[in-house]
Amino acid sequence: LRLVFPPPGCRYVSKAAPQAQVEFDFSGPSMKTAVPGPRSQNMSLSQNVGAINFFCNYEESRGNYLVDVDGNRMLDIYTQISSIPIGYNHPALLKLMSNPNNLSTLVNRPALGILPPENFPDKLTESLLSMSPSGMTRVQTMACGSCSNENAFKAMFIWYRNKERGHNTPSEEDLSSCMVNQAPGCPDLSILSFMGAFHGRTMGCLATTHSKAIHKLDVPSFDWPIAPFPRLQYPLEEFSRENAQEEARCLEEVEDLIVKWRQKGKPVAGIVIEPIQAEGGDNHASPDFFKSLRNIARKHGCAFHVDEVQTGGGATGKMWAHEHWGMDDPADIVSFSKKLLTGGYYHRDELQPYRIFNTWMGDPSKNLILAEVLNVIRRENLLEEVTRSGKALLNGLYDLQAQYPGMLSRARGQGTFCAIDICDDATRNSILLKARDKGVLLGGCGDRSIRFRPSLVFKEYHVHIFLNIFNEVLAQHK
Amino acid sequence: LRLVFPPPGCRYVSKAAPQAQVEFDFSGPSMKTAVPGPRSQNMSLSQNVGAINFFCNYEESRGNYLVDVDGNRMLDIYTQISSIPIGYNHPALLKLMSNPNNLSTLVNRPALGILPPENFPDKLTESLLSMSPSGMTRVQTMACGSCSNENAFKAMFIWYRNKERGHNTPSEEDLSSCMVNQAPGCPDLSILSFMGAFHGRTMGCLATTHSKAIHKLDVPSFDWPIAPFPRLQYPLEEFSRENAQEEARCLEEVEDLIVKWRQKGKPVAGIVIEPIQAEGGDNHASPDFFKSLRNIARKHGCAFHVDEVQTGGGATGKMWAHEHWGMDDPADIVSFSKKLLTGGYYHRDELQPYRIFNTWMGDPSKNLILAEVLNVIRRENLLEEVTRSGKALLNGLYDLQAQYPGMLSRARGQGTFCAIDICDDATRNSILLKARDKGVLLGGCGDRSIRFRPSLVFKEYHVHIFLNIFNEVLAQHK
Repeated sequence: LRLVFPPPGCRYVSKAAPQAQVEFDFSGPSMKTAVPGPRSQNMSLSQNVGAINFFCNYEESRGNYLVDVDGNRMLDIYTQISSIPIGYNHPALLKLMSNPNNLSTLVNRPALGILPPENFPDKLTESLLSMSPSGMTRVQTMACGSCSNENAFKAMFIWYRNKERGHNTPSEEDLSSCMVNQAPGCPDLSILSFMGAFHGRTMGCLATTHSKAIHKLDVPSFDWPIAPFPRLQYPLEEFSRENAQEEARCLEEVEDLIVKWRQKGKPVAGIVIEPIQAEGGDNHASPDFFKSLRNIARKHGCAFHVDEVQTGGGATGKMWAHEHWGMDDPADIVSFSKKLLTGGYYHRDELQPYRIFNTWMGDPSKNLILAEVLNVIRRENLLEEVTRSGKALLNGLYDLQAQYPGMLSRARGQGTFCAIDICDDATRNSILLKARDKGVLLGGCGDRSIRFRPSLVFKEYHVHIFLNIFNEVLAQHK
Repeated sequence: LRLVFPPPGCRYVSKAAPQAQVEFDFSGPSMKTAVPGPRSQNMSLSQNVGAINFFCNYEESRGNYLVDVDGNRMLDIYTQISSIPIGYNHPALLKLMSNPNNLSTLVNRPALGILPPENFPDKLTESLLSMSPSGMTRVQTMACGSCSNENAFKAMFIWYRNKERGHNTPSEEDLSSCMVNQAPGCPDLSILSFMGAFHGRTMGCLATTHSKAIHKLDVPSFDWPIAPFPRLQYPLEEFSRENAQEEARCLEEVEDLIVKWRQKGKPVAGIVIEPIQAEGGDNHASPDFFKSLRNIARKHGCAFHVDEVQTGGGATGKMWAHEHWGMDDPADIVSFSKKLLTGGYYHRDELQPYRIFNTWMGDPSKNLILAEVLNVIRRENLLEEVTRSGKALLNGLYDLQAQYPGMLSRARGQGTFCAIDICDDATRNSILLKARDKGVLLGGCGDRSIRFRPSLVFKEYHVHIFLNIFNEVLAQHK
């Protein structure tokens, strides 16, 4: 690959890669074939093959670079749909997994809810409980993001019904009617979600997901209220009045829907929202919006569930995206998965977990890895690095946006959790493929956005490698 | 622990443990304290603590024996809710996980649906595809049992709607209405399930689960049809006429419900059933019942989903419980998890998986372990062993039932997947605790049953160890 440098004056030209940090990283992309290459194309799978991009050589992958079976080495700014926390084959994780003391955790998966391993409380303390969101001291692990949200919804329904009853003891009618899916045992309660939201694809989650039709098509759903999510105009500083009005409009609609659904006999037990709508197009809202929404939830007696499955784990420069709101009491429930390696959710004490249960309830081998990931994040000050890289990335995107005004718009982000809009869907998809052939893996989101989801070891010099290649791709599209 | 031997004449007295097989096993239970012991009681967890039995020392556990943090060693006939395939710390698995070539699989979890590892097709062929149910050549992995069933339901809904349309192309109205949870995009389709069924606890699964009120209470559900599952009378040979009538009654009700729900505008897209209702009380039905049900599904254009999450993986003496039906075309979908270590489902080609997707789509590290588990099952002829141990277990239960007619009834099972009823709930629970204090871990199911769920390395001599202790416990309750 030949790196084409952007015109002089671009601020990201001058930064060189500090070599000390490259120990377990490559120096740049290296492309041998188009992607997918001939070996990938010759491989087949009895599974769902429609979505497969290419086959990977994870053994050879390292740090920010994903290597495919054709020997192509790509700078990975999508990281398995935002789920790789500290790059590929981090030496600390390889060392951890080579430790014979950890073998037992790998081969004996317990039913955590009834027979936890001796070291599980310590591993929880070292990992998830060391990063508890403000106001929350309890966490429940789960196997994946969808299960985390499904069980968070259940916890909110149970909490709401106990509140309605005034006690925790169900009636005989509750107990008999629920067995045949009928009220009052299976009550007509609802979860309020937002247009553009993505909360997963199991049937409860899917009723709150509204990002793409193809996720929802043909699957029965619930008649639950759906509020508009603010559509901010960029640059933010030029549209502060309009954006404030837009957020106020959405909040008003939330209150109207809560009242309307109560009147319909389907009260809103909880509100679920992403701090940044990711799959739906990297849609942001202001801290004030979330503060007001939290207050609306409290005012109407609804639980407030912040879904940090994609935003959690440090990519915004803080461990949780909701920390940017600056609240002591940001939520009743915070769910997570992806970069946290295990699914699960934190909850306030009031949302008792006594009826949340399944066979595995997570996987201690993932907690083990997470504890070491957190050690690396702290030791290497990765949240600061993310903030630094994120600034370089966003500034680079601003520059490119100024350079290609017809093609790029709405550069936005927090930490390295950034996105930019492309003029149309077809151009976006073409840019994604061309960048890939030049050694940069990116993902789309929304109708015509590109989302940036590097791991936490994405440094400023990786930003510059990316910007150079991206600039070259854009120049070819101009 | 003092082993009290049963009265002479009991057929299980004479069998001694063949020492050759004990290499990685202990010789018997060894109890130092009551359970939970003082160390377990002193440990705490910020998680849901209500259900925790005790804390475990998985490092010291081996084969059929689970060791707790107080040094108690128990014969495990519940195996983490039926999810440990070949006992604790099997040497073959320890060796596999010590192999440095497998490190990368442990630390780099891919988004399998888009970027599978190079060896994934081989690992699938070696593992899941080497045991495909008859008529099925495709498999989709998932993270857990609930996700497996949720996605199987979705596959059936999508298949049904495409059949209704006559093609795979949704209308504009389909696409726009589904975004707001409304028909026709989110159609009013249903899944027919059975009273006593357990298919998981996420919201789609939970609408087909009807085993205990506490699973369902307070969670909104779907108005889906629920058929009676046959309640067979035992001993089967004495009640063959009554049982045939009971099964015919249930099948008739299934057809009535399918017609009724079609008339209600909520057509049945699929029927889901366990080959043996496990959580619901180890309820069995005859192969003829399942054959007729399969035909009813076909006749009415419903997909037929066999949930083998608990029954799959060898415990019935065959890899799949539905193999006992002797059908070439037993199902359209077969879901699994637990002993298979990864969740997932097999499906017939017609049930296309193109819209089934999530971030992880399973976990290749679990496929790796499963491939080795299958090697062990074949090498050690474990399915034959299970058949042999199962016969010994069931014969032992028949003997005890004859000895304690007021306390025990309805001994039943296939392979080691056995159960027996106790006179009442309170006695059942007391027996479970007393057996535990004497070094045998058992689980309950249904209202007053005990279910036996040993791993596949449970040999005849383990059966005799169990029967001796169980007899002692029963004698104390007499």
